[in-house]
Amino acid sequence: MPAADSALKRLAEAYEKKEVKFLEAYFDCLRIPSVSSEPRYRDDMRECARWLVEHLSGAGFEARLWETGGHPVVFAESGPAEPSRPTVLIYNHYDVQPVDPVEAWETPPFEPTVRDGQVYARGAVDNKGQCLYVIQALKTLLDLDGRLPVKVKLCIDGEEESASPGLSKIVKDHGPELAADHLLLVDGGFASLESPSVGVGVRGIVSLRVEVVGSRGDLHSGTHGGVVYNPLHALVEILGRLRDEEGRITVPGFYDEVAALTEEERRQFDFHFNAARYEARFGARPVGGERAYGPRESGTIRPTLEINGLAGGYGGDGFKTVIPARARANLSCRLVPNQDPEVIGGLVADFIKLQAPEGVEVRVSINPGMGRAVRNRPDAAVVQAAAQAYQDVLGRPCGFRLGGGSIPIMPLLMEASGAKAVLMGLSLDQDNVHAPNEHFGLDRLKMGCLTLARTLELLAET
Amino acid sequence: MPAADSALKRLAEAYEKKEVKFLEAYFDCLRIPSVSSEPRYRDDMRECARWLVEHLSGAGFEARLWETGGHPVVFAESGPAEPSRPTVLIYNHYDVQPVDPVEAWETPPFEPTVRDGQVYARGAVDNKGQCLYVIQALKTLLDLDGRLPVKVKLCIDGEEESASPGLSKIVKDHGPELAADHLLLVDGGFASLESPSVGVGVRGIVSLRVEVVGSRGDLHSGTHGGVVYNPLHALVEILGRLRDEEGRITVPGFYDEVAALTEEERRQFDFHFNAARYEARFGARPVGGERAYGPRESGTIRPTLEINGLAGGYGGDGFKTVIPARARANLSCRLVPNQDPEVIGGLVADFIKLQAPEGVEVRVSINPGMGRAVRNRPDAAVVQAAAQAYQDVLGRPCGFRLGGGSIPIMPLLMEASGAKAVLMGLSLDQDNVHAPNEHFGLDRLKMGCLTLARTLELLAET
Repeated sequence: MPAADSALKRLAEAYEKKEVKFLEAYFDCLRIPSVSSEPRYRDDMRECARWLVEHLSGAGFEARLWETGGHPVVFAESGPAEPSRPTVLIYNHYDVQPVDPVEAWETPPFEPTVRDGQVYARGAVDNKGQCLYVIQALKTLLDLDGRLPVKVKLCIDGEEESASPGLSKIVKDHGPELAADHLLLVDGGFASLESPSVGVGVRGIVSLRVEVVGSRGDLHSGTHGGVVYNPLHALVEILGRLRDEEGRITVPGFYDEVAALTEEERRQFDFHFNAARYEARFGARPVGGERAYGPRESGTIRPTLEINGLAGGYGGDGFKTVIPARARANLSCRLVPNQDPEVIGGLVADFIKLQAPEGVEVRVSINPGMGRAVRNRPDAAVVQAAAQAYQDVLGRPCGFRLGGGSIPIMPLLMEASGAKAVLMGLSLDQDNVHAPNEHFGLDRLKMGCLTLARTLELLAET
Repeated sequence: MPAADSALKRLAEAYEKKEVKFLEAYFDCLRIPSVSSEPRYRDDMRECARWLVEHLSGAGFEARLWETGGHPVVFAESGPAEPSRPTVLIYNHYDVQPVDPVEAWETPPFEPTVRDGQVYARGAVDNKGQCLYVIQALKTLLDLDGRLPVKVKLCIDGEEESASPGLSKIVKDHGPELAADHLLLVDGGFASLESPSVGVGVRGIVSLRVEVVGSRGDLHSGTHGGVVYNPLHALVEILGRLRDEEGRITVPGFYDEVAALTEEERRQFDFHFNAARYEARFGARPVGGERAYGPRESGTIRPTLEINGLAGGYGGDGFKTVIPARARANLSCRLVPNQDPEVIGGLVADFIKLQAPEGVEVRVSINPGMGRAVRNRPDAAVVQAAAQAYQDVLGRPCGFRLGGGSIPIMPLLMEASGAKAVLMGLSLDQDNVHAPNEHFGLDRLKMGCLTLARTLELLAET
């Protein structure tokens, strides 16, 4: 029996012995409605944080709350490992998305129910499922060996679903406590168990609001049509100039700092894209990016500027004879390494303001909650360990993923801890994450526990 | 005493004798909540129509309802005038605008209240006030002379505030009953009693809905940004191409049929525009039209294309990471004589569809309720009589006005009746028409009665 197989067998047997008790704790946690974005769940948020502190203390962790001004962060440390062993910081979150439309749930979102091997509940996957299998992995290793193979620190956010404003604010002050060699962010997944992958990159983000202001109040489009400069026209004219026919963003300087992929990096990632499968799944062709790049590249290693919303006048059914006083757009840019969100936000804002025609005022503001991009090397020890663990547990080769989305807390945690990072997780496309009837498989809870334990064992050897 | 003075003195004395009774009837009519656009007022609409039939029958008119499929039209004819005298068709409407926000009214909208010589009620001006002073003018003339100086027909619409769909549909069938020499549309006004005017033109209208369809459902802007063609980008790019830097509409053929003003016409109208006063009043500079024309020209004798609404994605405060599946715009064109609304709507729709980028579908539909432009000659007898009447009653020279708005029923009534038309009325800017606390002056009810009676006397001589 190869080393990996015997290691996994040992972990699996230990997991199975405690599975019932583990699921009881998991269900207890799922029953707490920890919706961070709705003020009425404020007390439930704190209850969930306290539940985690107790749960971790019971397992021998030194656990405490970090106050953030918003919902607290749960921070916990294992007892000392052998001095030569590395320190591993693991990020999860205990807050969940709202449940609306609640009538679309087959069973109530905060009453976990098992059907066909799937646990249905809000947070079943995102992120209580992944958080609790991480803790269970630690308990399993402690049960087996009396100590962990590495020193472990847990940082469990209470505001991930709201872009982590509290943790972002305090993360620098907690640098010494967060210091680590490796960082695992266990909040993701991949399309199918057939082709596992770990994430090594995310794009950065900066978002802006554009407002075009014309007259003092709304005007009649008959009496004033052809007289005033319609703010809706100004808005579409300005926004229509943001991209050229090649799909490139026209804002001067937008691409100046973009880090190109080296030939070596290019070999490490798979930029293949199945356009037919994409179209079948989403009902749209993948033709929105820069002509010079394929859809996978445009969606990961190239920056974008997208309009996320337009509003002004009467956009409903029928018709109103209005020239509105104001028109508005929400925009966001996804950024790649070396692009500074504040700098890019400023360039976009300046360009838009410069386009303002005579007769209207154009206001642009940059929203808080920006974040930098991350692009790690697949050959980093933490990335290799995580990929090896998935390969061992799932029996499939594990790839390296560059994501198109943004995790603003990721670069901040990397900076505060000094650690290299990898994105892990076993969420699949079919799990209804953020939607009604979110669910997670009992089989994946076990796989999660095993991959985490296995990753830590592999990291002990680095 | 000049002829006009003695004629007016006679009318004023007769008016004053019946003023109290007239106001009682006016208040009765104002108490009926005849809001045509809200289904819950359906019975009140019919009650108001019946009230008018009775009120007119009591004055010796042969009055009846025309069914339209929607709210009925009240039609009434006076007894025969001297055979040589012309027939005058008068258009008003008895439906009113909704009253929302009702809490902004100082007194309830359907309980007419007099404060400082002003009658406060929904419909006080628009158009029950103007409708009832028209009827009072007829009653005054009948009281004085036993018969009217001209044959009069009244057409009182029940759906003017909804663009007259019912009357538009049946107007052709009632051609023989509507046949007239002159048509007075008494539903307008001017800025101030210092500078009265009568309207001789309106612009036509055609409105369109544009929908850009991308993916099957909304997508995450991180994962899909740079992959799909964002429908919001497609929308702003398309709409941003509708006007050039000179403010001209770029749709091929848009200006082909535009009737230019002759030198003679240009002399008859005043295209002077006080930009400083406009800016002080509306908070916007009058710089939105074609560079080659002044704001008064752009707002009356030139066609326009305005975006009336944009909607798609998330346009509110804060930010959502969405690429919406659909984006939408409402557009309208104001038209000038010789432009066919259906043709122009088709040209705009074709142009927009041609701009569709690869990756999205662009759907354009033309709304019902289009209308042609009207531009009458100020030297027409009906225009001259109306202007003379205002001049006699208000003691100020009366101008000729080209309007920027649209009255789709106007060209249809002109065609069905064979009459030349003029737009009359004593509504002023300060009356809060279509807004809370609509009001009309007791003095203007009298002026309205006198101008109408005087107009009919003058038309008797044509």
